[in-house]
Amino acid sequence: MQFTAKEVSTLLQGTIEGDPDVVVFKLAKIEEAEQGCLSFLANPKYESFLYTTNASVVIVNGDLEITEPVKPTLIRVENAYSSFSVLLEMYNTIKLNKTGIEQPSFIHPDAKVADDVYIGAFSYIGAGATIGKGSKIYPNVYIGDNAQVGTSCTFFSGVKVYHDCIIGDNTIIHSNAVIGSDGFGFAPQADGSYNKISQIGNVIIEQNVEVGANTCIDRATMGSTIIRKGVKLDNLIQIAHNAEVGANTVIASQTGVSGSSKIGENCIIGGQVGIVGHISLAKGTQVQAKSGINKSIEEEDKKWGGAPATTYHNYMRAQVVIQRLPEMERKLDELQKAIQQLKGLD
Amino acid sequence: MQFTAKEVSTLLQGTIEGDPDVVVFKLAKIEEAEQGCLSFLANPKYESFLYTTNASVVIVNGDLEITEPVKPTLIRVENAYSSFSVLLEMYNTIKLNKTGIEQPSFIHPDAKVADDVYIGAFSYIGAGATIGKGSKIYPNVYIGDNAQVGTSCTFFSGVKVYHDCIIGDNTIIHSNAVIGSDGFGFAPQADGSYNKISQIGNVIIEQNVEVGANTCIDRATMGSTIIRKGVKLDNLIQIAHNAEVGANTVIASQTGVSGSSKIGENCIIGGQVGIVGHISLAKGTQVQAKSGINKSIEEEDKKWGGAPATTYHNYMRAQVVIQRLPEMERKLDELQKAIQQLKGLD
Amino acid sequence: MQFTAKEVSTLLQGTIEGDPDVVVFKLAKIEEAEQGCLSFLANPKYESFLYTTNASVVIVNGDLEITEPVKPTLIRVENAYSSFSVLLEMYNTIKLNKTGIEQPSFIHPDAKVADDVYIGAFSYIGAGATIGKGSKIYPNVYIGDNAQVGTSCTFFSGVKVYHDCIIGDNTIIHSNAVIGSDGFGFAPQADGSYNKISQIGNVIIEQNVEVGANTCIDRATMGSTIIRKGVKLDNLIQIAHNAEVGANTVIASQTGVSGSSKIGENCIIGGQVGIVGHISLAKGTQVQAKSGINKSIEEEDKKWGGAPATTYHNYMRAQVVIQRLPEMERKLDELQKAIQQLKGLD
Repeated sequence: MQFTAKEVSTLLQGTIEGDPDVVVFKLAKIEEAEQGCLSFLANPKYESFLYTTNASVVIVNGDLEITEPVKPTLIRVENAYSSFSVLLEMYNTIKLNKTGIEQPSFIHPDAKVADDVYIGAFSYIGAGATIGKGSKIYPNVYIGDNAQVGTSCTFFSGVKVYHDCIIGDNTIIHSNAVIGSDGFGFAPQADGSYNKISQIGNVIIEQNVEVGANTCIDRATMGSTIIRKGVKLDNLIQIAHNAEVGANTVIASQTGVSGSSKIGENCIIGGQVGIVGHISLAKGTQVQAKSGINKSIEEEDKKWGGAPATTYHNYMRAQVVIQRLPEMERKLDELQKAIQQLKGLD
Repeated sequence: MQFTAKEVSTLLQGTIEGDPDVVVFKLAKIEEAEQGCLSFLANPKYESFLYTTNASVVIVNGDLEITEPVKPTLIRVENAYSSFSVLLEMYNTIKLNKTGIEQPSFIHPDAKVADDVYIGAFSYIGAGATIGKGSKIYPNVYIGDNAQVGTSCTFFSGVKVYHDCIIGDNTIIHSNAVIGSDGFGFAPQADGSYNKISQIGNVIIEQNVEVGANTCIDRATMGSTIIRKGVKLDNLIQIAHNAEVGANTVIASQTGVSGSSKIGENCIIGGQVGIVGHISLAKGTQVQAKSGINKSIEEEDKKWGGAPATTYHNYMRAQVVIQRLPEMERKLDELQKAIQQLKGLD
Repeated sequence: MQFTAKEVSTLLQGTIEGDPDVVVFKLAKIEEAEQGCLSFLANPKYESFLYTTNASVVIVNGDLEITEPVKPTLIRVENAYSSFSVLLEMYNTIKLNKTGIEQPSFIHPDAKVADDVYIGAFSYIGAGATIGKGSKIYPNVYIGDNAQVGTSCTFFSGVKVYHDCIIGDNTIIHSNAVIGSDGFGFAPQADGSYNKISQIGNVIIEQNVEVGANTCIDRATMGSTIIRKGVKLDNLIQIAHNAEVGANTVIASQTGVSGSSKIGENCIIGGQVGIVGHISLAKGTQVQAKSGINKSIEEEDKKWGGAPATTYHNYMRAQVVIQRLPEMERKLDELQKAIQQLKGLD
């Protein structure tokens, strides 16, 4: 793929300053760009790079004031960052435009597969499963019996979706994520052993969700584990059976949500957080990385931290004091001595 | 699958109250059940749902006293929860009753595969490997050379078992779990680099074990990493080389057990716990989620918490005081001033 | 494989004490060894086992003084531990000496695959991908389009390498690790939803790296996420987009490195550590397991602990005091009362 500055500018409805015929064939950060690269400047903090970059073309905000001579061709747009994101997306859409059914693959005669999908080699589509229009199933993916995959989904290599799970449109699932494994439920027996409680529910993932690599979402005991529309899950996350993650909530890597807990909409949960079972987090809750949430949060739009978690304000105050603990202990001992003396003086 | 209330009652050796001919075709929680659903009531806390549920049939305890009119047919049994678990299991047994060898799959001529197994497409059974009677190997599974899989095991799609590992009867392993990857062992060299120490041991998993999705159990340097009978491991757990997990121990998601550590029987370990290497935990030890265990625990049946962990009692006490730390610091400053004044008065 | 003591001794350039014709066919730890086993004694702490072991041959240090009668044949070498490591490596090299291309596998006509490689069944080599001389690709592996794999690499079953990623020579990647999944980048929108920021960079792994099972290394937004030569990553680790891990750094299981952070050379990072984004850790930094690093570390070769982390010294001091917190609080209350009394006396 290669484009002239003019072609890019037309696409972005921008205005050109400099040579419109210069050619670019790669996207790069302004500080790392070489000749032939298309870059962008959005954050004024990086303005100095504009005067030193080797990029051939730089997309800038319409109101940027140039204070030194610049070598690259500039394309002025309303929002340089948004415009560049559009280019990134176009780049990937062209690059990852896979279609067709590679062989060998396994599509059960009773599966319903739309006619414009991509099915990679060694992928398995079970009996009664459906794959919607425009979806891309990379190699080595497993779609269990009666699972439903919506339209325009992308499942990268190694994704495993157990039977009966339902995945909404425009959902992206990264390699080796597991959807619908059994919830962790066992009944203790008198002899100390455990009997498995069969997990007959499923997982429902709504539209526009992204699930990271090696993330696990367990099926419900009965009913459904639910990931609402627009949720973004990072890598190596655990979502236990019967949990629910609210719309547009973002969860960072290595966090675990225990069974039957309900995370509200528009929450932001840091990495390596643990959330115990059977609680709920109000809409807009934010949780500091590494925190442990052990009870329900009812007030909306609050920030929490620590393990067990408290309000972020209290958490930060306690952290500061913990650093001073040895000093506090020393002071306490001195006071004790001082009081002994005072008592003696009496 | 559909059944009449009478058929279910006969199966559970229960007694019917209401229409014996009503038909059910789905299992559901009492609060979510619709017409055609079979549900249960075990916990008296949920009794009110019995009078409002749309379930067609509800299994109840024999001694339940009905205080309002009920619509569904009731089946009285000795223990409603146990009886319902039996139905869940039957449901899954029928539903997941896969058999036969799908093509293409790879079974080495020197592998020994019992004649009633299920081998899914794109699964690989290495040279010298054995698969016992009644085992189900879903698609995209890898069984390395000379690995031994017992009878009636279920390995879901994407499980990887390295060469020489041994898996006992009735063991369930969920998708993308890895059994027998190399232990993390390296010898530091004078130039700051590391030489790999080859890991020539294996993993032994005994019977009736369940291993969660994306969980990793490393092979021993020499000898065996051992998971004893009845152990239940949740998703995304790390068991390092030469560790041993005692019979009927349960470990929740995202916990890590370091090299050569020995967890006793009947322990209950919470999620996101870290256990350092070369220690042992006594039988019946319980560990609070997110704790860090950095030394051996010798007393049996105790509960621990914190990182580094202390007894649960101390942990809880310290947590409470930490919340009051800023207040303690303020008090300390006031006392200091008071003493200054007292000294001045002297 | 079986060898006489004499053959082993010749190989290691050692000297024999005892029967040179005794045969060994297995490697084992001295305390677990049976007849036919070859073992070693390096740590003087275990010397007593030398007089009780059932091993047929034991490799010992040249200067070891024998104080009791020994049954096994001894082979004296300069460094028993190093010599034994050499044997372990030879054992695995012979054992895992796979070659050839198993069927069915998928090698795109535009892929470049060296002629002495091993490609297991159900593995996928994409368009434009290269596999270097002597590399072993186990079954069910995915190598995306234009990915480059160096010489003498081993990728165990289920490894997924996304398009455009570059893997250096002699690198080992364990089962179900994911290289090159999308970085976790989203732009918040006015309605509370998020737009995906396409991730068009790649992952570069240099030579002699080992990556553990189920570990995830995300591709860069632009540019590269970089794992320098000699790095050793344990299982279930998260390396986020645009991060860099310095040469010969070792990271234990379940640790997460957030986006754009740079870990220096020769660092040692414990398990379950979290490192926030956009910071850097100086060369030789050591981090205690379970710590949280939330700011850059500039001083080299220091040890850190806690969450948020402080110097290891401070961390250990604070931990000790935290245990005494309830006692401190009680003292504080007593002092308060004592001062009240003193004030009253005045």
